[in-house]
Amino acid sequence: MAVSSARRPTLAVVGATGSVGAVLLQILSQHADIWGEIRLVASARSAGRKLSVRGQEVEVVALEESVFDGVDVAMFDVPDDVSAQWAPVAASKGVVVVDNSAAFRMDPDVPLVVPEVNPHAARVRPRGIVANPNCTTLSMIVAVGALHAEFGLRELVVSSYQAVSGAGRAGVETLRAQLSLVAGTELGTSPGDVRRAVGDQTGPFPEPVALNVVPWAGSLREDGWSSEEMKVRDESRKILGLPALPVAVTCVRVPVVTTHSLTVHARFQSEVTVDRAREILATAPGVVLFDNPAAGEFPTPADAVGTDPTWVGRVRRSLDDPTGLELFVCGDNLRKGAALNTAQIAELVAGEFA
Amino acid sequence: MAVSSARRPTLAVVGATGSVGAVLLQILSQHADIWGEIRLVASARSAGRKLSVRGQEVEVVALEESVFDGVDVAMFDVPDDVSAQWAPVAASKGVVVVDNSAAFRMDPDVPLVVPEVNPHAARVRPRGIVANPNCTTLSMIVAVGALHAEFGLRELVVSSYQAVSGAGRAGVETLRAQLSLVAGTELGTSPGDVRRAVGDQTGPFPEPVALNVVPWAGSLREDGWSSEEMKVRDESRKILGLPALPVAVTCVRVPVVTTHSLTVHARFQSEVTVDRAREILATAPGVVLFDNPAAGEFPTPADAVGTDPTWVGRVRRSLDDPTGLELFVCGDNLRKGAALNTAQIAELVAGEFA
Ligand SMILES: NC(=O)c1ccc[n+]([C@@H]2O[C@H](COP(=O)([O-])OP(=O)(O)OC[C@H]3O[C@@H](n4cnc5c(N)ncnc54)[C@H](OP(=O)(O)O)[C@@H]3O)[C@@H](O)[C@H]2O)c1
Ligand SMILES: NC(=O)c1ccc[n+]([C@@H]2O[C@H](COP(=O)([O-])OP(=O)(O)OC[C@H]3O[C@@H](n4cnc5c(N)ncnc54)[C@H](OP(=O)(O)O)[C@@H]3O)[C@@H](O)[C@H]2O)c1
Repeated sequence: MAVSSARRPTLAVVGATGSVGAVLLQILSQHADIWGEIRLVASARSAGRKLSVRGQEVEVVALEESVFDGVDVAMFDVPDDVSAQWAPVAASKGVVVVDNSAAFRMDPDVPLVVPEVNPHAARVRPRGIVANPNCTTLSMIVAVGALHAEFGLRELVVSSYQAVSGAGRAGVETLRAQLSLVAGTELGTSPGDVRRAVGDQTGPFPEPVALNVVPWAGSLREDGWSSEEMKVRDESRKILGLPALPVAVTCVRVPVVTTHSLTVHARFQSEVTVDRAREILATAPGVVLFDNPAAGEFPTPADAVGTDPTWVGRVRRSLDDPTGLELFVCGDNLRKGAALNTAQIAELVAGEFA
Repeated sequence: MAVSSARRPTLAVVGATGSVGAVLLQILSQHADIWGEIRLVASARSAGRKLSVRGQEVEVVALEESVFDGVDVAMFDVPDDVSAQWAPVAASKGVVVVDNSAAFRMDPDVPLVVPEVNPHAARVRPRGIVANPNCTTLSMIVAVGALHAEFGLRELVVSSYQAVSGAGRAGVETLRAQLSLVAGTELGTSPGDVRRAVGDQTGPFPEPVALNVVPWAGSLREDGWSSEEMKVRDESRKILGLPALPVAVTCVRVPVVTTHSLTVHARFQSEVTVDRAREILATAPGVVLFDNPAAGEFPTPADAVGTDPTWVGRVRRSLDDPTGLELFVCGDNLRKGAALNTAQIAELVAGEFA
């Protein structure tokens, strides 16, 4: 989006030193003409560090009220409790906050925005805050949203194959450490081998993740559900504007560094055809259709990692339900799943200052 | 099952030198009192090799018609085309064949048997052949069958997390080779770096499987479905005796050596409760209920590998459908998924000789 150079808004990036922050700084360097001043903010621990953005070294400042003076838009990429405390402080000073934590996503006075799906929602923000969805929801919602706009979604059943970087830097380090213990060995064929090698080095995961899959992400909610599963259901409903949509989710961690994948079983209001579904996905903004099994084409994390769009393949009509579609989707959890969507929301807001 | 020692049936193991064959010989050693003579059969390439079974060295003989002389039961663990040719030869000599290939599974005159689910079916075998289901179906069907017996199954939506040993020894070697290329490196965070490292060393898989997940198993069928997905649907329907059951499946390969996992979304004829579902699963033969997320308990391949039962956890009632259940299941694809189920069927048949 082109913003007149007469008045380029001032941006603060809160959490600039984190893993989402790092990807955000790359994206800001690519979209260099949107913003006037860019302030980098983190905890007092990082004050004085220099980070590169738009080819320039910028000094990180510690989070305090005065960092928001003269700021138009602030992106928050910090833990939930830091957002919960500081986003309202920034908003009270007239700053539009785009928050990437879970603190405000389900607040009815905070829109939850995916620019390809519900851009209009970003304009109505009673608390001065716009929330960014969690990475698992974001990895599939652009594709699902495009199909919903045409066919009218009636039900979702999804299973995730989630990358370890969704658990931050600690997740990545844990997988690397475990892999170096098991690679080149005969491990992984007898009971307990992987667990014996890895011991209690399970990092942010409850079980070893190398040569394994772990059906758990987040914390325990009611009736055996994980917080991650509840987020996918609640956030999908809110983004699509379908508060009663039936959504069944099982979230599973896999030994992939970056890029979440999901299988999607979607049922619609009326009959669907694969040809029309493919046309929609081939032309939807933010979606790449990669779907030609005869030529060995279907998305994998190795294809999608480091790219912006949601990759979609394995598009099939449900064999026993002419209103159903089966899909396999991949999205980079650090780009569209976090930093990119935040940047896109902030750019939508920046347009209001033009 | 105890068989009177007066008349212990004679067994032939065809494909004794393969990866399923190797696990079968272990199982036969554990169930040592069932069989009289055990003959080991493979291709001419293996004739004269010695393999250990029940603590004794037995010489492998080449497959030819005379190996079935005096044999009561033959287990076939060979490629589809070898079974297609030789199982009828054995059957014509009065041998009961238990076949682990895909050659006869959908033949209406061949029962497809899971002893915990439909043992009675093994008694009616117009062609003298009993078929063993494929490993992905077997990894979940014992648990699903137990719930079906109580609640009446109405629909299945499943996604698989399939181990590389499902593609035989070549699959295991491919994952090991790929892991030793990527472990200890910074690979897997930038686009294409796994693919660059692995090159065309993708073995039996269409894409790299280390640090990746690959939504493809088997060969291409109509309308974009894979043969593996069609097997899960067709075989589940046949085993459960529900020829019109709606089944939606997406099969995905993951970097796990042995043990297939699946997410299962199952809908039943009437309301279900998690308490009753757990009671059923806790007492069902061949099932281990491992389901206490508060204590970090849910099944993973690292738990189930090398064990006999189907491990079930993450038992939840669907939030938007009182007739629905969500499960996560793990089963060792070489044991219950292949060799163990074959041995169990053969033992059912052996009972007829008692
Ligand atoms: N990783 C993902 O895939 C992903 C996806 C979507 C959303 N998110 C969400 O995005 C947020 C950041 O995640 P992340 O993975 O980037 O985490 P991270 O790598 O742990 O980074 C955390 C950032 O927050 C800053 N911070 C922590 N405490 C602070 C405080 N008291 N005051 C000011 N700054 C503070 C840190 O600064 P210091 O360096 O100074 O400590 C750092 O910049 C979280 O809410 C997360 O849930 C993550
Ligand atoms: N791996 C699994 O998870 C799995 C699960 C369920 C079912 N299955 C099925 O079980 C069967 C065996 O699979 P596997 O993984 O054990 O395969 P494998 O490791 O490749 O072993 C193949 C076996 O078949 C024998 N064989 C091949 N051609 C033959 C011929 N012309 N005459 C006689 N014997 C011949 C081989 O003997 P030589 O050593 O002499 O070549 C070997 O014993 C296949 O139908 C497979 O689809 C496999």
